[in-house]
Amino acid sequence: MQEQLSKIESKMEELKQQLDAMAGRMPSNKLSMVVFSGDLDKILASFVIATGAAAMGMEVVMFFTFWGTPVLRDKHKPEGSKDLMGKMFGQMLPKGACAVKLSKMNMAGLGTTMMKSLMKKKNVASLEQMMELAKELDVKIYVCEMSMDLMGFKREEMINYPDLTYCGVAKFLEEAMDSRVQLFI
Amino acid sequence: MQEQLSKIESKMEELKQQLDAMAGRMPSNKLSMVVFSGDLDKILASFVIATGAAAMGMEVVMFFTFWGTPVLRDKHKPEGSKDLMGKMFGQMLPKGACAVKLSKMNMAGLGTTMMKSLMKKKNVASLEQMMELAKELDVKIYVCEMSMDLMGFKREEMINYPDLTYCGVAKFLEEAMDSRVQLFI
Amino acid sequence: MQEQLSKIESKMEELKQQLDAMAGRMPSNKLSMVVFSGDLDKILASFVIATGAAAMGMEVVMFFTFWGTPVLRDKHKPEGSKDLMGKMFGQMLPKGACAVKLSKMNMAGLGTTMMKSLMKKKNVASLEQMMELAKELDVKIYVCEMSMDLMGFKREEMINYPDLTYCGVAKFLEEAMDSRVQLFI
Repeated sequence: MQEQLSKIESKMEELKQQLDAMAGRMPSNKLSMVVFSGDLDKILASFVIATGAAAMGMEVVMFFTFWGTPVLRDKHKPEGSKDLMGKMFGQMLPKGACAVKLSKMNMAGLGTTMMKSLMKKKNVASLEQMMELAKELDVKIYVCEMSMDLMGFKREEMINYPDLTYCGVAKFLEEAMDSRVQLFI
Repeated sequence: MQEQLSKIESKMEELKQQLDAMAGRMPSNKLSMVVFSGDLDKILASFVIATGAAAMGMEVVMFFTFWGTPVLRDKHKPEGSKDLMGKMFGQMLPKGACAVKLSKMNMAGLGTTMMKSLMKKKNVASLEQMMELAKELDVKIYVCEMSMDLMGFKREEMINYPDLTYCGVAKFLEEAMDSRVQLFI
Repeated sequence: MQEQLSKIESKMEELKQQLDAMAGRMPSNKLSMVVFSGDLDKILASFVIATGAAAMGMEVVMFFTFWGTPVLRDKHKPEGSKDLMGKMFGQMLPKGACAVKLSKMNMAGLGTTMMKSLMKKKNVASLEQMMELAKELDVKIYVCEMSMDLMGFKREEMINYPDLTYCGVAKFLEEAMDSRVQLFI
């Protein structure tokens, strides 16, 4: 009988270990997003989703890459000295959240202006306000180092945001693997 | 010995509870999609994926937002009275599934017409047919209330679809958190 | 007491089965991507993510569909005889990785050329090099049969890639359901 008990105990220990291993592989209550687009509509969508998820108690990570990167520039900060390519990217890409345009119906800026005034009228938060809200809700922002380097952006140009993290795709993938929800926007 | 047995039993009860808690956190056999785009090609892709998943027995939720919203308008329904902005959006955005255009090679509508005739020739279901199929397969359609409000669309303009649900991003996120697969299209 | 032991054993067997069932439903350490876009920037992003994930030990599946399909054409292979539509698609869509363009700032090809030379200068791998790396890292490539059929592409035109698989959306969904991370690019 004692032998039978020992067997049961060791089998239960096995179950316990199997269970713990599985628990370790369960994704966290987290949302990871790649923000690839630099269009106002998609950036808005990503912040609506991010702040919505954070308000529901989820951890949120936004990884800004490619056209999403210039959205995080601070229009009040100087660009510093850049090479020719860096200057070109610097001028052609929107300088910060207030300068991004709609992907459709932009109509030389008219559509974007209309959309912004419409949002105000309908009491929808502006992109700048949503970014403030994201900050308050501890949404984490990662910036793709390769994009920064390609486009010639410097860290001194970027917005002040708590724990703004410059990293590569591997860091994002680690977060994504541990997330219940992942989106590429 | 009796004591040892009691210990085993209580430990097993613990395991059981841990297991049940984990089971509750396991995502359902569900697919959640944000349909942000209003381009024919992406809308087609979203319905191909939605109906494919539903046919495989998955639960499917599509959350239509931003440019995706006008695709759900019914071209036969009157728009009713709208303010100036609402009228502009109403006219500039496609009125329903038959009016959406390709994101590329639209060529003033020619490319879209060609693609549609090609799909017919190759026996690929049209968007309207896919939406019918989605209906039959119980694909759930959610519509973003904020987009409706911004673009001035009214519920009376939208297609008849079983249990068409008007909601916010929080409702979508709840579904996404409980889904094995999530996509932003 | 023997009876109590038997009860414990049968209850433990139940737990074991419940645990095994859950383990079977846990997604694999896998990344599944729909590569819908045919833009250089998004294709680059998808390969950066794919090779990054594979280097981290994840299994990676890329499902090329719609505008993503022509990227997999081999520019050195003849197109063979096609009907009128097939010829048109064949000519209008980029022939392989070296011919894809940026989604923004393409500027009649100038922006794309600049971006490519910039990538070289900054030691970022070119798309062709990333595809070679993907091959070495055993990234799996699936091609959407419906897109091939619609665009009139033939298997003989496509690149040589180990185990290149032509399939439908169902096959992709099976992989996605079993993946920790899914993205639509």
